[in-house]
Amino acid sequence: MARVYNFGAGPATLPLEVLERAREELLDYAGRGMSLLEMSHRSPEYTEVHERTRGLVRRLLGLGDDFQVLLLGGGATLQFAMVPLNLLGPERGCDFTITGAWSRKAHTDAARLGRVRVVYDGRDDDYHQLPDPAALDIDPSAAYLYLTSNETIGGLQWWQLPDSGAVPIVCDMSSDIMSRQLPAERFGLIFAGAQKNLGPAGVTLVLIRGDVLERCRQDLPAYLSYRSHAAKGSLYNTPPVFAVYLMGLVLEWIERQGGVAAMERLAGLKSAILYGVIDTHPEFYRCPVAPPCRSRMNVVFRLPDEDLERRFMEQAQAEGLVGLKGHRSVGGLRASIYNAMPPEGVEELARFMEEFVRRQG
Amino acid sequence: MARVYNFGAGPATLPLEVLERAREELLDYAGRGMSLLEMSHRSPEYTEVHERTRGLVRRLLGLGDDFQVLLLGGGATLQFAMVPLNLLGPERGCDFTITGAWSRKAHTDAARLGRVRVVYDGRDDDYHQLPDPAALDIDPSAAYLYLTSNETIGGLQWWQLPDSGAVPIVCDMSSDIMSRQLPAERFGLIFAGAQKNLGPAGVTLVLIRGDVLERCRQDLPAYLSYRSHAAKGSLYNTPPVFAVYLMGLVLEWIERQGGVAAMERLAGLKSAILYGVIDTHPEFYRCPVAPPCRSRMNVVFRLPDEDLERRFMEQAQAEGLVGLKGHRSVGGLRASIYNAMPPEGVEELARFMEEFVRRQG
Repeated sequence: MARVYNFGAGPATLPLEVLERAREELLDYAGRGMSLLEMSHRSPEYTEVHERTRGLVRRLLGLGDDFQVLLLGGGATLQFAMVPLNLLGPERGCDFTITGAWSRKAHTDAARLGRVRVVYDGRDDDYHQLPDPAALDIDPSAAYLYLTSNETIGGLQWWQLPDSGAVPIVCDMSSDIMSRQLPAERFGLIFAGAQKNLGPAGVTLVLIRGDVLERCRQDLPAYLSYRSHAAKGSLYNTPPVFAVYLMGLVLEWIERQGGVAAMERLAGLKSAILYGVIDTHPEFYRCPVAPPCRSRMNVVFRLPDEDLERRFMEQAQAEGLVGLKGHRSVGGLRASIYNAMPPEGVEELARFMEEFVRRQG
Repeated sequence: MARVYNFGAGPATLPLEVLERAREELLDYAGRGMSLLEMSHRSPEYTEVHERTRGLVRRLLGLGDDFQVLLLGGGATLQFAMVPLNLLGPERGCDFTITGAWSRKAHTDAARLGRVRVVYDGRDDDYHQLPDPAALDIDPSAAYLYLTSNETIGGLQWWQLPDSGAVPIVCDMSSDIMSRQLPAERFGLIFAGAQKNLGPAGVTLVLIRGDVLERCRQDLPAYLSYRSHAAKGSLYNTPPVFAVYLMGLVLEWIERQGGVAAMERLAGLKSAILYGVIDTHPEFYRCPVAPPCRSRMNVVFRLPDEDLERRFMEQAQAEGLVGLKGHRSVGGLRASIYNAMPPEGVEELARFMEEFVRRQG
């Protein structure tokens, strides 16, 4: 059928030209008489893909040579374990901000592995706002301060980073990486599952600063050690070849659009359109998130009742606007508008939202 | 260019019809107006793929309901850590057989995490043979006995399983799963990276028996715990969607060929052809592996000198026979003839080997 606009939270929409290119090359890659899916991860062809992709990450994020670029399996969830395994120790705890479902999960894992101090937990107001970064009491001896830059389920996004001094910030950027310009040097470690802003499910980007890498434990099993991966240019073992290839195509697409600066402009525009409709009809649409911390990636909103929400989704789907159901843990609606969501899709959704209000009138 | 015969050790050749089907469905999956690469792992479409794939594994291997079928990321290398993390404890060590490069790596990781007793190490004869299974002295209180059913680099394969009594066998079957019929009930845990016999890189199959699952530790971080994955039908977090889909297509292809019994017949035939050529020209070709433990998946052989080996590879490549270079750690040549390698490819290689001997004569 005709291509739909997919507002799903992840795995999420990809640029059509990336999919077309992948299809074109699927059976015979680079004239080698076989698919990239069949090629050794040590072949010159994959080596080129691997290094091009890592180079694009570096260039698009403006990373210095002090950062290692790793492409791992297991999703962001595996990073919830790898970060504390590598960085906590008998004398080194960490500070945590809990701002929604994802940081809560990361906290549960870290607390199994070491000493974790919670410096903010938004539970009392159902994770509808973020702390004042200046008010966080950060332990200067902490191994790291943990943040989730964008909470996909709650629809919250940090707009001002805490000043953590010499304490490195470890940040889960799964749902907003490459959608805004950030000062990379303020982070000690960044990770992001690819399946929202970077590519398909199956590969996780990990960026680790040299001084943080040097503090990693040395006695871990190979896969769980950032050191093993960094020492081999992220080819310690077989990487998820095809997912890395698709990530590379998505990054090239981002570069052609004008890089992260262009993605940031678009994210501002697209989210402003949707929040504009919501705020124009406060009697009908309601965003539960405090305005200063509304996400530009995941616009969550409620309708007056659940029956209307269900009809909204059904009618939207019939018009080719799909994936709008909120996460099962919170209900309501959610429009995820990652990098690859074209502005036209958001304009269509805004038009539908206005129309839906009128239909109820 | 025309399709080549790819004898690479993994990622490895895939059935052409699987690649064609994937290409056909790449832009619009099941008439949904989007690619499967873009679909939520909670969508009905992916749920169907996930459950169909897990069902095929069960059916093809004849697994009872007491086995959990998990589809994880991180490769077999992550399993080198997860197995001991889940199964070793202060009072429970394990027994290890070291039969080549892969079991040696697994041993290194296990030894970091608990008490490991080596019951066989083939180092003294450069891993060119396997132990007599009856002669292994297995500790009846061991948490498990560790085996690598096929050593991809050395080209060795276990043909007779040790009788481990009540001690569960944990087996890395990355390079021979689904190529032969095995009594599943003799194994407590089986894992296999997909990129040799099952599909592309990026997904690892883990089969775990109920009684072994129950002995797993309960205090692990979520991704590292078999319990978390088993409790959610291997959907605890976002799985590597596209790699699972391709594995499903490969498994359907195996079923259409006649299942694992047919793969076993083919593996016997294909390997007999190549070992036949080698043994017919003992003055020219030499397989370093003791005949009773030669692998039907990875046929390793040497030529009289390295210069001839280099010319062999170059001339083979010119005839569309690629990926024949032995692993860099051992040199020589290696023909990997997994399930998806058609017999015609092996016949071509045999013909080339005969021809190459004549050319030197």
